[in-house]
Amino acid sequence: MSTHAFELVIRNALVATASDTFMSDIGINNGVIEQMGRRLGPGRREIDAAGRTVTPGGIDSHCHLDQPMAPPTKMADDFDTGTRAAACGGTTMVIPFACQFKGQSLKAAVADYHQRANGKAHVDYAFHLIVSDPTPEVLNNELPELIAQGYSSFKIYMTYDDLKLNDGEILSILDCAKQHNALVMVHAENSDCIEWLTRKLEAAGKTAPRFHAQSRPMLVEREATHRAIALSELIDVPILLVHISGREAVEQIRWARGHGLNIFAETCPQYLFLTADDLGIDDSYLGAKCVCSPPPRDKGNQSVIWDALAEGLFTVFSSDHAPFKYDSPQGKKPDGKEVDFKYIPNGIPGIETRMPLLYSEGVLKGRITLNKFVELTSTNAAKAYGVHPRKGTIAIGADADLVIWDHKPVEIKNSMLHHEPDYTPYEGMELLAWPGITISAGEVVWDGTNFYPRKGQGRFIQCDAPTLLPRRVTASQRD
Amino acid sequence: MSTHAFELVIRNALVATASDTFMSDIGINNGVIEQMGRRLGPGRREIDAAGRTVTPGGIDSHCHLDQPMAPPTKMADDFDTGTRAAACGGTTMVIPFACQFKGQSLKAAVADYHQRANGKAHVDYAFHLIVSDPTPEVLNNELPELIAQGYSSFKIYMTYDDLKLNDGEILSILDCAKQHNALVMVHAENSDCIEWLTRKLEAAGKTAPRFHAQSRPMLVEREATHRAIALSELIDVPILLVHISGREAVEQIRWARGHGLNIFAETCPQYLFLTADDLGIDDSYLGAKCVCSPPPRDKGNQSVIWDALAEGLFTVFSSDHAPFKYDSPQGKKPDGKEVDFKYIPNGIPGIETRMPLLYSEGVLKGRITLNKFVELTSTNAAKAYGVHPRKGTIAIGADADLVIWDHKPVEIKNSMLHHEPDYTPYEGMELLAWPGITISAGEVVWDGTNFYPRKGQGRFIQCDAPTLLPRRVTASQRD
Amino acid sequence: MSTHAFELVIRNALVATASDTFMSDIGINNGVIEQMGRRLGPGRREIDAAGRTVTPGGIDSHCHLDQPMAPPTKMADDFDTGTRAAACGGTTMVIPFACQFKGQSLKAAVADYHQRANGKAHVDYAFHLIVSDPTPEVLNNELPELIAQGYSSFKIYMTYDDLKLNDGEILSILDCAKQHNALVMVHAENSDCIEWLTRKLEAAGKTAPRFHAQSRPMLVEREATHRAIALSELIDVPILLVHISGREAVEQIRWARGHGLNIFAETCPQYLFLTADDLGIDDSYLGAKCVCSPPPRDKGNQSVIWDALAEGLFTVFSSDHAPFKYDSPQGKKPDGKEVDFKYIPNGIPGIETRMPLLYSEGVLKGRITLNKFVELTSTNAAKAYGVHPRKGTIAIGADADLVIWDHKPVEIKNSMLHHEPDYTPYEGMELLAWPGITISAGEVVWDGTNFYPRKGQGRFIQCDAPTLLPRRVTASQRD
Amino acid sequence: MSTHAFELVIRNALVATASDTFMSDIGINNGVIEQMGRRLGPGRREIDAAGRTVTPGGIDSHCHLDQPMAPPTKMADDFDTGTRAAACGGTTMVIPFACQFKGQSLKAAVADYHQRANGKAHVDYAFHLIVSDPTPEVLNNELPELIAQGYSSFKIYMTYDDLKLNDGEILSILDCAKQHNALVMVHAENSDCIEWLTRKLEAAGKTAPRFHAQSRPMLVEREATHRAIALSELIDVPILLVHISGREAVEQIRWARGHGLNIFAETCPQYLFLTADDLGIDDSYLGAKCVCSPPPRDKGNQSVIWDALAEGLFTVFSSDHAPFKYDSPQGKKPDGKEVDFKYIPNGIPGIETRMPLLYSEGVLKGRITLNKFVELTSTNAAKAYGVHPRKGTIAIGADADLVIWDHKPVEIKNSMLHHEPDYTPYEGMELLAWPGITISAGEVVWDGTNFYPRKGQGRFIQCDAPTLLPRRVTASQRD
Repeated sequence: MSTHAFELVIRNALVATASDTFMSDIGINNGVIEQMGRRLGPGRREIDAAGRTVTPGGIDSHCHLDQPMAPPTKMADDFDTGTRAAACGGTTMVIPFACQFKGQSLKAAVADYHQRANGKAHVDYAFHLIVSDPTPEVLNNELPELIAQGYSSFKIYMTYDDLKLNDGEILSILDCAKQHNALVMVHAENSDCIEWLTRKLEAAGKTAPRFHAQSRPMLVEREATHRAIALSELIDVPILLVHISGREAVEQIRWARGHGLNIFAETCPQYLFLTADDLGIDDSYLGAKCVCSPPPRDKGNQSVIWDALAEGLFTVFSSDHAPFKYDSPQGKKPDGKEVDFKYIPNGIPGIETRMPLLYSEGVLKGRITLNKFVELTSTNAAKAYGVHPRKGTIAIGADADLVIWDHKPVEIKNSMLHHEPDYTPYEGMELLAWPGITISAGEVVWDGTNFYPRKGQGRFIQCDAPTLLPRRVTASQRD
Repeated sequence: MSTHAFELVIRNALVATASDTFMSDIGINNGVIEQMGRRLGPGRREIDAAGRTVTPGGIDSHCHLDQPMAPPTKMADDFDTGTRAAACGGTTMVIPFACQFKGQSLKAAVADYHQRANGKAHVDYAFHLIVSDPTPEVLNNELPELIAQGYSSFKIYMTYDDLKLNDGEILSILDCAKQHNALVMVHAENSDCIEWLTRKLEAAGKTAPRFHAQSRPMLVEREATHRAIALSELIDVPILLVHISGREAVEQIRWARGHGLNIFAETCPQYLFLTADDLGIDDSYLGAKCVCSPPPRDKGNQSVIWDALAEGLFTVFSSDHAPFKYDSPQGKKPDGKEVDFKYIPNGIPGIETRMPLLYSEGVLKGRITLNKFVELTSTNAAKAYGVHPRKGTIAIGADADLVIWDHKPVEIKNSMLHHEPDYTPYEGMELLAWPGITISAGEVVWDGTNFYPRKGQGRFIQCDAPTLLPRRVTASQRD
Repeated sequence: MSTHAFELVIRNALVATASDTFMSDIGINNGVIEQMGRRLGPGRREIDAAGRTVTPGGIDSHCHLDQPMAPPTKMADDFDTGTRAAACGGTTMVIPFACQFKGQSLKAAVADYHQRANGKAHVDYAFHLIVSDPTPEVLNNELPELIAQGYSSFKIYMTYDDLKLNDGEILSILDCAKQHNALVMVHAENSDCIEWLTRKLEAAGKTAPRFHAQSRPMLVEREATHRAIALSELIDVPILLVHISGREAVEQIRWARGHGLNIFAETCPQYLFLTADDLGIDDSYLGAKCVCSPPPRDKGNQSVIWDALAEGLFTVFSSDHAPFKYDSPQGKKPDGKEVDFKYIPNGIPGIETRMPLLYSEGVLKGRITLNKFVELTSTNAAKAYGVHPRKGTIAIGADADLVIWDHKPVEIKNSMLHHEPDYTPYEGMELLAWPGITISAGEVVWDGTNFYPRKGQGRFIQCDAPTLLPRRVTASQRD
Repeated sequence: MSTHAFELVIRNALVATASDTFMSDIGINNGVIEQMGRRLGPGRREIDAAGRTVTPGGIDSHCHLDQPMAPPTKMADDFDTGTRAAACGGTTMVIPFACQFKGQSLKAAVADYHQRANGKAHVDYAFHLIVSDPTPEVLNNELPELIAQGYSSFKIYMTYDDLKLNDGEILSILDCAKQHNALVMVHAENSDCIEWLTRKLEAAGKTAPRFHAQSRPMLVEREATHRAIALSELIDVPILLVHISGREAVEQIRWARGHGLNIFAETCPQYLFLTADDLGIDDSYLGAKCVCSPPPRDKGNQSVIWDALAEGLFTVFSSDHAPFKYDSPQGKKPDGKEVDFKYIPNGIPGIETRMPLLYSEGVLKGRITLNKFVELTSTNAAKAYGVHPRKGTIAIGADADLVIWDHKPVEIKNSMLHHEPDYTPYEGMELLAWPGITISAGEVVWDGTNFYPRKGQGRFIQCDAPTLLPRRVTASQRD
């Protein structure tokens, strides 16, 4: 028996990484995994995980927390409540968005966002940048400097009036990403098509929440997906297409990969567990709860997304947590009113349910392997956003961000969740498992019943270049 | 510092698994990885790997050793020389084929093959079964019993007169595999097409080695690939298509995966580094050295295979080592004569060069990531053939089968290789790396210069069911 | 006004060809269209077609008449009743099959079939050859001679024990077709798969007619379609895939065409108007009426076939008329018994309904153009089988084989049809039109109410080489 | 023998339509085909076509004549010289473009264009409208009125600063076309991509004509093609994609058709006979002669276009005649200078060579059938633009617009052509045939040697709705 001592030892874990599953103890010091093996030395604290699976803590690489919105709308979760909910759902790192408004300096947006995060987070975090105004200053100075400072990913929008970029702007950003080795995330929906359909629906008096889905059919996503792929191909730089919702975009992505293009993609729980019917089968305003973009599709498309997850088409599985209350003037009822679908704040809460949904319905129901679960919820996000292997795995030297799973029936109720929104789209779903313990940087933040705050101890993590792909070598170096 | 003692400790390794890369010591006892971490206790023997990458030992899951052939042909490598060459090339487990002859009992074939292996192997080994005569006895009794005894994979042929099965026989074998959770490997080429083309070539006096390639164009492989996929789909059981050579078969496999089918595929070095020109641009008999089936294609198809490796289309990368001497009546010159291409023994040697070729040209030249290399050369084979996580990774509890890589220029010469054939197809290729140390079950078998025999210490490993896919649950359990 | 006199003049016709629609009189002499135009000279007989559409008489290039069967089964229609029904349904030429039995000389089969046709046919006819035994004598002597004598198309089977050919035999026939400029029609279903599924269904006691459909799922057709395409590609000769039933085979054909291969295809009414449910939703034996191969699929596949017709994927639209009585020991109840599905004679009657079904549901309901109707039902068959422009169009010099359409509601009842089978699968369907007059070689054989026999006046037409494709020139002639 | 007399009779013609080829006399009165047949009555003029093929006169549905340009650029051909060249090349109807400038009324553009055409044309003509400024007035009033007046097609641009429309504008125009049954032609290239690439090339000093091709790679066309297809799908209205240049756009169109979308496409001689090398393999300014958009691609893409023509993917084959002189300040040398590629007027002359190029290299060299030639050069354009069957065929009642072909070697020289530009891109090409006689409205305008002017006798032809597709019926009418 080793006499080496640890702050924390997890015994007899069935450890799962993105590639392997094996029995091991895990010895942790200073919040880092220092040793693994059999018969590890004693820990000041020990947890017996015998019979239980231990996975890397989740990384939610697409979530919105305390992001400034046009009044009266306001996000219900900030870095405190958002990371609290994350932790209780097995997520130990979040990467929300520092969003530039048109006319604003990106650095100002980043500075502001740090203000919002400072002293609040219970788990570690990083920032993506949303670039809505790619001025020469932004492209030539701000982005290069910010990338060097640890903001290595940015998101761009092909829709939403206040955020969308035209193709020329997108090219300039992709080119910047290529020069500085950053990763661009793309929200791909054709803005003009949505606007045209919305006008037609309005003209026909079709303004209930469910018409949101009709205003954004799959071809709207397919077209923008194809266009984003083409722009990426032109610049010869990878992109990551976020929140892919169904067959048509999936087929474009498969086509691109089959042609040797480095196109990464993300999907979210809403495309596995919701359908357009959740926005309403009649004109009830309750459908507003599930208004998000792209909208959920139908059962057939849920199968397409499941198959694509299993096949390896998707790189990451995120929540796209966008926390608005339903019954609130700051949320789904702006100024307290039931409004036309086009005015309903887009987005649904999901930061806490993401991991258990996929673990229960994916792993335990035999749709994906346990290793694929780890890859999708944690490892690949760590690689895509440059924090691997510090994050995203259970390995020597990695941060001790861990989830120990309880296999037990759980019925999802909003009352048991730790976010601020007054509903969950998954109310009443029955799962087969839930995080029994969440460990962040070696400390238990959730034990299956209680949340143990670490407010302000969540650290800002600088992001390096993506490592999903082999390092680039020139053709001459290669041949 | 831990006081725990190990038989062997590898210090400061840059450990690569199929998903992660991290710095760690590796502590080994009883041939097994017992601990990993920093500041591990002392080892009776220690190796400092500082600055060097350590990968799991390779698993060559498609190689032929001492397989009985019709006289005068005889394989040049047996379990002694074959595993010697394997070890010196970084491969620590081989899975050759116990081949049933038509009319023979499968169990007899297995018993015979154990006779050939016993007391000879320097590294661990398992057997695939080649089923050429699926009688009811074979299907109902022998296969189920053999699967239960640790032979969980079998290979079938769609070509070669003495081995090929018709579609009905293939269905019966796939059905058996489904019932007993085995994995079927398929050699997919259309036999009748080859025969027809061969007759035409012969009639035209085109009998030099290079016409072997013309007798098996890509559509011959594409057709059989599509057919094998359809048969697999009918039975609803995964298959693994071996030695895929080019674009047309790749597109069929991509199509199948995009339709949710569990089709796995393998490729080999000859499809990355050789072309049909290596079978001769004139009628020289030297081309016989590179006669294998399917034949290598062209430069464009090499790119297709590289892209498909990077994309994740291939599950395993094997050698298809088929060791015949060139200048031997037992080899490429039956009865000492230069013969028509159709009589040339099919196959090329490659068990020793497989790992360094892919490491140098794939990883070090930026075509695939280091993790993808591990996945392709070791982890996925371990999962496909039911020996993971004992094999195929560097993790607690795994066999200490390891390769420590030397990054240095190496020119391949047959004289430096350890197989018996009198040539290598890769003579003169300049690589950037070679295994510096190979460790099998905790013992150094190759140190970059010398081979340290472990003859007879290589163990027969029983293979369990594949773990590439999630465990099957019925639809009712799922929904 | 011209003073030229005709035997028959059709006035004011809205003439439709495969490309054009225009107003014209049609002047006929000696059974041939001699002049068209305005103000044509007088006819001894005149028909005023004002306001009515006139199309070329249909060519049913896939129908079975008096084809020898294994007892007790016997076709209900011979050349008399079959061509009677054809004429009343607007079809003025039939091309049934002279079928070689294994062991039989092809010429003997042809001679026998002429015996069956002689003196009976009411409209013109030609023969396809069914080659079931491609001996060297057949390939080297009989086929070349028969092709020269006007039998320029042959059909081969990939299923049915007494007819099916293996891939090598198919290659030899394709090669013969290439050498002698003939067209090979392929029945593409994988025989072994059908046999395997049939055994499974039988073992489960699933023997009702409806299980016929389950024994031949679409992948069975898709696989054989892909294989036939590959064999055609190997030989570099066009083929025509008959009776394509649904999406999976359609996608293979589209793939082939997109790769520059000359793959032609045919579909039939049963794939537009029937579904597998017509074989029974319970175990009733009435489903035997619709047992044919491939079986009808589902509504979604009907749409696929409609779209493919409109798109131009299909070259010909035939009936695959296979006339068996339902309530007869010679028909669907062999020896008077309700039998297992695998013993039910395959095929359905349809020679009389083919043209009105497509005219009504295709043209009049806006799914295809009138010109496409002509192309599919007549012109392309004439080109594929080497009788164009004598047949297949309304043009100077063409045989005066014409249909004048009545636009009026018609409910299909077997009692109004002129074939011998005691049922039609389309009983009760309501159509918008029916042939008002059918003219064969300038003579009215059907006037919408009465059939005017021309027994024995139907001529055997020698078929030349296909003209669907440009004449072959060698690459050197081309560039 | 009929005694009916004609103004002109063509005897013994081998008449080709888009579907049929047959021997017939053609009797013409009042510029219209009145009768066809054998032994037609006498003509005041007779032409013996024995042994010669007669096709419908060509319709060049994509050509630019006297279209107002920004100074100093000016088109070299007006309606006089342009239709003169057309006639001598076998084209008897042209459909150039009445182009709206931004800010201009469409009706004003049409009126202006009539001014330019009046009294000048030697053959019949119609106008497409180019819509560059879809104001509400244009969409709601002008377009509907113009459509009713015989302008049933309009062209839109996705590139060129002064013409391009955004997606929303395109949707509004497609919607208008749907409401009023017009056909929209789309120039599909992504403007922002071109601009981005152009800037990069300029920055690198790459301004020679050949860089024009690099500024518009195939993906630029592919992206816009996919986008146009998606917009068409959203509105559910057919479109016609003009001047498709290569594989990538072709694959998008095939995909669309395979999904049941009504996407039509056009290609041009430059994509069959030129490559990017014709824009220069060095920086010579002579490459300016072949600067057009999209640019010609490479030999492989020429094959793709040939195959797609044969397969039926293309609906029309036009010239995109854009007549600029090379050595002129009004042409390829603005202000007399050799300019950067982006300032070179786009377009090449081709109105006279279009028909003989395709007839010789397509029909006579066995790449397409004679009927396909007729369909591509005449019939389908007539249907697409609503002038069929008056135009586009040889049939009773059609205008007597005919070409009688001479099969003889012809070397193309600009000196023998009748357009105004000082070069032809096809200088020196050796063809196998040329129009021997062109007849427009019953009058010989070209006899193989001499041009017989009919200046001002060319008529403006009103265009009706397209007839390529079946008339629309609602789903309820259909089912």
